[in-house]
This record gives sequence, C-alpha cells and structure tokens, in this order.
Amino acid sequence: MSKPVVLRLGNVKYAQEAWEKLGQIAQVITVDESSTRADFLKQCQDSSSDVFRTQVIARTFASVQNTGRFDEELAKALPKSVAAVCHNGAGYDQIDVGQFASKHIQVSNVPELVNNATADTHVYLLLGALRNFEYGHRLMLENKWPNAGAAAGAPVGNDPEGKTVGILGLGGIGRAIVERLKPFGFKKFIYHNRNRLSSELENGCQYVSFEELLRVSDVVSINIPLNPKTRHIIDSKAIDQMKDGVVIVNTARGAVIDEKSLIAALKSGKVRSAGLDVYENEPNVPQELLDLPNVCGVPHMGTHTVETIKKMEEFVVENVESVIKSGKVLTIVPEMKSDSWVNEQKPLK
Amino acid sequence: MSKPVVLRLGNVKYAQEAWEKLGQIAQVITVDESSTRADFLKQCQDSSSDVFRTQVIARTFASVQNTGRFDEELAKALPKSVAAVCHNGAGYDQIDVGQFASKHIQVSNVPELVNNATADTHVYLLLGALRNFEYGHRLMLENKWPNAGAAAGAPVGNDPEGKTVGILGLGGIGRAIVERLKPFGFKKFIYHNRNRLSSELENGCQYVSFEELLRVSDVVSINIPLNPKTRHIIDSKAIDQMKDGVVIVNTARGAVIDEKSLIAALKSGKVRSAGLDVYENEPNVPQELLDLPNVCGVPHMGTHTVETIKKMEEFVVENVESVIKSGKVLTIVPEMKSDSWVNEQKPLK
Repeated sequence: MSKPVVLRLGNVKYAQEAWEKLGQIAQVITVDESSTRADFLKQCQDSSSDVFRTQVIARTFASVQNTGRFDEELAKALPKSVAAVCHNGAGYDQIDVGQFASKHIQVSNVPELVNNATADTHVYLLLGALRNFEYGHRLMLENKWPNAGAAAGAPVGNDPEGKTVGILGLGGIGRAIVERLKPFGFKKFIYHNRNRLSSELENGCQYVSFEELLRVSDVVSINIPLNPKTRHIIDSKAIDQMKDGVVIVNTARGAVIDEKSLIAALKSGKVRSAGLDVYENEPNVPQELLDLPNVCGVPHMGTHTVETIKKMEEFVVENVESVIKSGKVLTIVPEMKSDSWVNEQKPLK
Repeated sequence: MSKPVVLRLGNVKYAQEAWEKLGQIAQVITVDESSTRADFLKQCQDSSSDVFRTQVIARTFASVQNTGRFDEELAKALPKSVAAVCHNGAGYDQIDVGQFASKHIQVSNVPELVNNATADTHVYLLLGALRNFEYGHRLMLENKWPNAGAAAGAPVGNDPEGKTVGILGLGGIGRAIVERLKPFGFKKFIYHNRNRLSSELENGCQYVSFEELLRVSDVVSINIPLNPKTRHIIDSKAIDQMKDGVVIVNTARGAVIDEKSLIAALKSGKVRSAGLDVYENEPNVPQELLDLPNVCGVPHMGTHTVETIKKMEEFVVENVESVIKSGKVLTIVPEMKSDSWVNEQKPLK
C-alpha cells in the first residue's frame, strides 16, 4: 500500500528533522517555488501529477504568493482526496473556511504557540508608540540630534501611569500582553470580546462594550482575528469615538483597521501614534504611512523568532501526522468545531 | 532681609507652578540662554552680578551646553555663597563631586523618580535588539519588503525563553527592569554589583562575578553610573569574554562602553545587536554607528515623558527648598553621604 501524499506549500526553515521523520509514514511532495496559482490549480486537476493524489496539505502564510488565497475557486479545484489543510499560523484569514467545511476538508491552525512571541512584539510596539521612540530614532538617523536639543526634537512621550489599556480581543495573545504589561504600572486594563469571559480568563481585566472601550482607552490594543465581521472594525467612525491623542497598537491583521482612516487620524493628531506589525495590503505598505514619524512599525515580525518558527513548523507536522494516523487534525479551527462530520471522520489508513 | 538667591540653569518644561511658588521664599535668577561657559565664569566673579550672590544652583543635563562640566575650574570660580548644586537627573557624571565636596558645596541628584521611565526604555530597547525589530523597520522604510520576503529580509530574532539576562548594576533601575522582564519568560536573571545585595533587594537575581556575568549572559543589561572606575568598563577585552551573538543594552551612560569596540563587535557579529539610549559623545553619534541596522537606538529618551520630567523638575525645587529651609538637600549624592560637614550644615537663614 502506498504512503499517503502530503503536499507542503511554502518553505521549512527549522523543522527539517520533523519533516524527515514524517517521510517515514508519508510521501511528502512540494510545488516549484516559482509556480503560480494557475500552475497549482492545473496540477490539482492533472491525474498524472503527484498533487492529484494529495491527502493532506501543509501551508504557510507566505505560500499565498504561489497559490493565492484558499478561496472557493481553489477549494473546488482541489483533488477529491484532500482531507485536511494544516495552516502554519494562528490567523487563517487566507482560508475561506466555509468553502472547505462544505467539502468536508478540515482546516487546522497553530494557536497558543504564537502567543508569547506575538505579545512580546505587541509590548515593544506599544512602548515605542507611547514613548515616541521610533520618532526619536528617525530624527537621530537624520542627524537632527546635535542641533534639535533633547531627544533630537522628538515629542515628549507618556508614562504608563494613569493610562487605561483597552484590549480588543482578550484571547491567548491578549492575555499574554496583559501579563507582560502588568508590572509597567498602567492604571487599568479593560477588554471587549463578543462575549464576556469567565473571571478566571479575565484575569483582572474589566469587561466593557465596544463603544466604551473606544471612548475610555488611552491605548487601544488590537488582538482580534480578521474575518468579514471584523474587517475595518476600526474605521473613521470608530476612531472618532476614541480619545484625542489615543495610541493604537495592532499585531492582529492589518485589515481590521481601515488603513486610510488611520493614516488620516495619524496626520491630524487624533491618533497620536500607532504601533503596527501588520498592514492592510502587506507586503505593500503605502509610502504615506511609511513617511509618518509617529508610527512605530515592523514588517510582520510577530512570530519572527528561531524558537517560535521552529515550534510552529513542528506543530504543523504534528497536525499532518494526526490526520494520517487518526483522520483528524489536532487543532481544528473554531468555526469547524461544531461540525458533526469532523467527529465522524475515519482514519485515512 | 533679602531672599536667598537661586540660580536656575537650563529650561523648565512642566514645573512652572513649583518654581513660581518657590519665588515666594527665594529670588530665582537665570542666565541668558545663549551664554557660554566663559560668560558664566565671568558672572560668577562679578560682584555687580546677581549670580555673584547665588546660594543654591539648580541645573539640568542640557545646561552643560551653556556652562560646560561642573569641574574643578567651575567649582573654584563659583561665588563663595553657593551652598548646594541641585542636579536634575539620576546620573551626575557632569559634576566632579570631589571638587564640590572639598568646598563644602552639597550636590544632590534625582534618584528613584527616573527608575520606571528608564526601565520602560530599557525593556523597549532589549526587545528591539533581541528581535531585530529596528532592523526590520529600517528595511521596511527602504521599501525592501515586497521583494525581500518574510520580515522584509530582517534576520530571525530570538525569544526570551532559555536566555540569561545579566544585569550589570542592580540598583533601582536594574530592579525595575527585572520586575518588567519577569513575565517574558527568560530563563534566569543574574547580576553583578561591587558588593552583593541583601536577598530582599536581589529579588531572585543571582549574584555573580563581573567575569561570569560577561561569560554566561545572552543579554547584557547595563545600569551602572559613569565614573572614572566604570568608564569603558565594557571594552574590547570585556566584549571578547562575552558569548558570540550577545545582545547588549545600555540606558546608563554611553561612556561606560568603549563605543569604538562596540561598533567593531557589532560589525563582526560578536555582538549580534545592541539597544542604546546613550552614546559616548552624545549628542554626537558616529555615522558608523547610525549606519548599523543591528542597533536599536534612541536619542537619550530614557526619561523623556511628560509625567517623569514634571516629577523630576518638581523634585529639584524640593531639594532647593530644603536647602533654603534646613541648609540640607534631600538627596545628597552617595559620595557625600559620609562627609561629616554635610551633617554639620546649618540652615541658610
């Protein structure tokens, strides 16, 4: 009996060993690094191609460059043999889950493991935005310091004392952020989720409505997944409701913010500064945004660490292995949890 | 009887009210903003000048631009009436304390109040250096992202897990840094001071020798005052003893590091990255240092916040007031604490 076929989309940086081991129980195939979406969809339909026999797909965020989004067209084009898509990342907005659910293809993500590295990034961006550190850095690089006086002329920042942090989305990442921020001396942590959490999960954060969070937060910390309901949830109307001089930090997904409205508010000073790891159309970032000295921004580096990338890559292999051995992914995405077919899945072999 | 004369050197940003109130019990004078050291020394000797009657001097870090260092020459030139120099800042390396002690002029600094804002800055720079955030930011600004792949091509950083942080100088700032870093999941905190602290003040940090700190730290966190003994304590010999790929963070004073050796080590990769708030000859920073993408640096912004600047300025006024009312500053610098003349001081009035 031939080994199940696992299609790996995107590069492996650190989990070579785990993939080699998986090779003992699976035939691991890849597509050409230069291949396009059209190439990929063609291979899916070509019965002479290895891709045509794929049973499990493992994919990375960056592989979207080769395949495009995992949308209706792609879901329809996939070989009938595909049982699961194992995504490497916490956010899986590149995958239209409904399209895969209707074809009984499981989708898994990598939750939890990303929390610490993402929260570290968030704290860096929050401090940078609150204190205008990136502003000062930029002026220093422009050799403004010797003549512009203290801090090379960067606007004076603020201390955490007396400030309220509003966590939009208190999940694993939000909680890790709050844990890290506690010793800094903020006045208060509030949060908004669709539903209030148990007090244990709240861990001292006060539940408020979306509108109250916007109205009273000195720092708005964004940690919600991107989906049709959260797309542009921070638009000009939401920003208008915020305090003058608010600080916004986003390590979730760029498109939860209407980037044009954010840029306008950063220019007017309504938003004093922003800490950004993610952008609406990354890797393309508007020059207008890059030119703003009151943005502390990094190019999607939330989980860009040796340790976390390795753990995430290895966990994807665990998900793939689980499908092969039990027919089920380990971490099915929440939208699929209630689907009865998931619980009826039989092992592949 | 005329009011005691207080000479204020350097600008007041936020403590106008406190200075106005002090005006009720003192005559507050200033020197021209464009005055030079020569002008100042001349006024000190000119019996027709208000400066000649100065009893207390309040000074800022930036006022060194007008007066130069408070060194032997300046100490000798000061009017005989001067009883105290109240410095605004924790570090007072601009003042040669011995020269003032021998003239029985008290010197005070502003300890404690700077701890939180400086520690916040330190954590920002530490995270930035450990994660290569500034590297990524720079590449993004250079529009490298769309083509350079993940993180715009920035080198992959590291998580805190498994890393040892070596605190060189576990005082108020060092302790505030450790408190903030605890939730991030570092493996261990070690420290070196000239003398071991009580276990209460150690707060879980392990005491090691200077050499061991250099040898085993993944992150070297520098928090020692600058004085003749600590000048260039981190030189090429010290760096050679460190781990390959070490991260160095300095929010103390630039000259505790031999900047040339640091630049060479950042170029060779011996030091993987550095987080710097301070520079050897600030506000002049070598172009060679500014050009390094593995430096996360800000232009001396450690206490650059509305809240902390205000508190520090107000505390200087409290020190001045204390001299006027009791003859003694509130926070005499440590070198003067054992001087018997300090304890013999009589009120000015």
